Amino acid sequence: MDLQNMDTLLRCPICFDYLNISMMSQCSHNFCSLCIRKFLSYKLQCPVCNEAMTEQDLRNNRILDELVKTFQHARKQLSELPFDSPPISPKS
Amino acid sequence: MDLQNMDTLLRCPICFDYLNISMMSQCSHNFCSLCIRKFLSYKLQCPVCNEAMTEQDLRNNRILDELVKTFQHARKQLSELPFDSPPISPKS
Ligand SMILES: [Zn+2]
Ligand SMILES: [Zn+2]
Ligand SMILES: [Zn+2]
Ligand SMILES: [Zn+2]
Repeated sequence: MDLQNMDTLLRCPICFDYLNISMMSQCSHNFCSLCIRKFLSYKLQCPVCNEAMTEQDLRNNRILDELVKTFQHARKQLSELPFDSPPISPKS
Repeated sequence: MDLQNMDTLLRCPICFDYLNISMMSQCSHNFCSLCIRKFLSYKLQCPVCNEAMTEQDLRNNRILDELVKTFQHARKQLSELPFDSPPISPKS
């Protein structure tokens, strides 16, 4: 199921949790606001592609925060569908 | 189902189709590359929030292109699940 790939895309490459206040770099990589700020205080480069960057290059990627919320909700709804239980025949 | 909300988030507010080469403005709004460039040739502001902007403010939002692809694929897979057909009992 490709939901697994969506899950991966919506996670922070630093903490591996879902993106929390997503910030996008100029090189188009996304991180939690806190994770990338901590990282930049140690090294001024992108943790994914090593391109030089500073905090000023970061831009809020708000749509990712929305997508994380709706994805988690959709996944919860899907997990409640009885995929794994044996199918029940309609009452006749 | 919250997949409907994900679908809405992954569409361009100009053409209403899925984002195609997503570009993000400084105000954190996303558009197809072609749609926003056409719009800016007519008016130098964000079509969503009216904030002043130019082509130079645009930044590729590549993760959205990935999300569009995986979302379309996941939705196709879900649509092939037999939700609407009458359940079939396992052979006994
Ligand atoms: Zn993080
Ligand atoms: Zn990078
Ligand atoms: Zn468009
Ligand atoms: Zn805007």
